[in-house]
Amino acid sequence: MQSLWLENQTLSLRDIPRPAKSGEALIRVQLSGICGTDLELARGYYPFTGVPGHEFVGEVVSVVESDDSSRREPRNLEISESTKWVGKRVVGEINAVCGECEQCKNGRPTHCEIRTVLGILNRDGVHAEYTSLPLANLHLVPDSVPDEAAVFTEPLAATLEIQEQVHIQPTERVLLIGAGRLGQLVAQTLALTGCDLRVLARHPHQKALLEARQIRLISEDEIQPRRWDVVVEATGSPSGFDLARQAIRPRGTLVLKSTYRGEMTINWSPFVVDEITIVGSRCGPFEPALRLLERGEVDPTVLIAERYPLARALEAYEDAKKPGMLKVLLG
Amino acid sequence: MQSLWLENQTLSLRDIPRPAKSGEALIRVQLSGICGTDLELARGYYPFTGVPGHEFVGEVVSVVESDDSSRREPRNLEISESTKWVGKRVVGEINAVCGECEQCKNGRPTHCEIRTVLGILNRDGVHAEYTSLPLANLHLVPDSVPDEAAVFTEPLAATLEIQEQVHIQPTERVLLIGAGRLGQLVAQTLALTGCDLRVLARHPHQKALLEARQIRLISEDEIQPRRWDVVVEATGSPSGFDLARQAIRPRGTLVLKSTYRGEMTINWSPFVVDEITIVGSRCGPFEPALRLLERGEVDPTVLIAERYPLARALEAYEDAKKPGMLKVLLG
Repeated sequence: MQSLWLENQTLSLRDIPRPAKSGEALIRVQLSGICGTDLELARGYYPFTGVPGHEFVGEVVSVVESDDSSRREPRNLEISESTKWVGKRVVGEINAVCGECEQCKNGRPTHCEIRTVLGILNRDGVHAEYTSLPLANLHLVPDSVPDEAAVFTEPLAATLEIQEQVHIQPTERVLLIGAGRLGQLVAQTLALTGCDLRVLARHPHQKALLEARQIRLISEDEIQPRRWDVVVEATGSPSGFDLARQAIRPRGTLVLKSTYRGEMTINWSPFVVDEITIVGSRCGPFEPALRLLERGEVDPTVLIAERYPLARALEAYEDAKKPGMLKVLLG
Repeated sequence: MQSLWLENQTLSLRDIPRPAKSGEALIRVQLSGICGTDLELARGYYPFTGVPGHEFVGEVVSVVESDDSSRREPRNLEISESTKWVGKRVVGEINAVCGECEQCKNGRPTHCEIRTVLGILNRDGVHAEYTSLPLANLHLVPDSVPDEAAVFTEPLAATLEIQEQVHIQPTERVLLIGAGRLGQLVAQTLALTGCDLRVLARHPHQKALLEARQIRLISEDEIQPRRWDVVVEATGSPSGFDLARQAIRPRGTLVLKSTYRGEMTINWSPFVVDEITIVGSRCGPFEPALRLLERGEVDPTVLIAERYPLARALEAYEDAKKPGMLKVLLG
C-alpha cells in the first residue's frame, strides 16, 4: 500500500505491506489530519520510525484473526464481535494498551506502561492507505457526522480532557493562550461551559474563526495579571508559559495543553507562594467528542485549510508547517 | 523592648519601641519558633527589614484603640470585642489582610493583594518581647495545649493546607520527601488520613522520630518510579524535586510544600505526557490545627531541639542553620 514513512527525521512516500496485526481491525483510511505532534516527530522531537499520523476516520475492511490461543472468550462470541465492525465507519483511540498493568487496572489506560501509540510510539499510524488498531480502540461514527468532522474526533477528545481533569465553573474567568489547530478546538469546547472565556490569538484568520462563533478575543496588553481562574496554555512556547504564569490568579489552575520542546528555566517560588496548580493534559475521551459532533455543538470543519491526496503528503506536511496554518488533511 | 532585627541580611539585637498599631492586639510573645523561611530571609532570599519570626504563642496585653473613624460597628460593640481578648493566650495567622480586594472577597484572604505578613513582608514579626496583629488574626489556644505545642500551630496549619488543596484518599500511596522541621509535621498529619505513607528522611534523629510514631520510612533506592499517587516535596531542593518527578505516577499529584531558592531547569513534556498535577502549597487553616493539638492527634513537641532566651537569639539562629536541625525555640 502507499504510505508516508518517517525515518531519521526524513519523510518519504513508500510502498509497504498492509498492516496485518493479530486480532486487530484493518481499516481503510478515508481521511487523516496532520497534527502539531506529527510535525514535531518529523523534526525529531521524539524518535519514531514508521508511518506517522494519528487523526483519522476510516472504514473497517476486515478483522485479522487472533492467534492468541489463550483468549478467554468463546470463539463464536469473538467472531460476532469482530464481524460487527466490518464495513463500519470508525474513528480510533490512539493508545493501544495491555489492560493488565497498574495503569490500565486503575482506570488510566491512556497511560498504559507498555502502550503503543498510533503513529507516535512503536505503532504505524494513519498517513497511509490502511491502518490497524485493536477493536477496543474503535468508535462508530454516527451517520450524521461527515468524514470532514469525524477526522477531528481525536484532537476534540484531547480538548475535553481539560474538563475531565479540571472543573471549569460557568462563573470562572478562563484565558486560552493560543488559537492554532488545537487552540481553536479548545476554544469551542470551553465556550460550551458558559465560562467567561477570552482567547489570545495571533493570526487574523484564527481571530476571524473565533469571532464567527462569538468567542471573545483578548490582546496581550489587555490580559490582567493575577486575575484568571484558569489559564490554558496551548502554544507550547516559553513565551506562552510566561504569559500564563502572569495571568493566573492565586490558587488558580494552569493547564498545559501542549508539549514543550526542550527545557525551560523556571522559578518555582512564586508558584508555591501563590499556590498555583499546574495540570498537564494529553489524550481525552472519544465518546463525548462524538456526542458533541453529532449534536453539532462544535464545528471543527472550519479549521480545514487544505486537503491533499496521500500521494502529495510531503507537500501537505510542508504546508502544515507554515506559521498559523490550521488543519491540513490527507485523503 | 528587646528585639531581634534583620537588615541587609544581618541580624542584630536591638531595643525598639513596642508596636502600637491602631486597632490591633499588642501581644506579649511567650515562645516563638525559628522556621526555614526565617533562615532564608536572613540569607536574603527575599528582602525584609524589621523583626523576623512568625511562629509564636503569646498573651494579649491590650488592644490599641482604633483611630479609624469610618468604622461601621457601633463603638461599644467594638470595645467588647477588643476587651474579650485581653489576657488571653493566643496564636495568630500571619497574613494581615484588607478584606476588600478581589482575593479577600473570593475567599482567599491568605492571598490578599495588599497583605502584610508577620515577620516576612512589611510587618514586624515575633522574635521580640512583643508583637502586634489584627484581632481577626487571633485564635484562642485551648487550655490543655501547652505553649510548647501551641507555638507550632502555624507550621501545623501549613501542613493541613495540603489536605485543603488535595484530596488524600486513605487508599493512596503517598510519598513524603524530606523530614525536617516542616516534613515531620507533614508526616504526622498525612499519617492521620490512613494513607499508605512512606517518608524519605536523611538524618538518623529524623528517622527515629518518625519510627517512634510508627510512620514508615523508605530509602531512596526503594522508591519505585511512577508508582506514587501523591508525592509531597518538602526539601525545597532540586534533587528532591527530581526524585518527586520520578516517583509520581501518571495523573498523580506532586505537592510543592517548600519554596525553592533560585531557578530550576525543567523539561515540561513528561509532565504533559504523564498528565501530572503540580500544586504549590503555603499557609493553612489554624482552627483544624488547634483541634488536632487539643486532641493530641499530633505531637509537635518532639521536634524541639533547643530553646534559647531572646537575648541569645543570634546564637539560636546559628544553631537552627545546622543541617538536619529540628526546631529551635526562643523565649
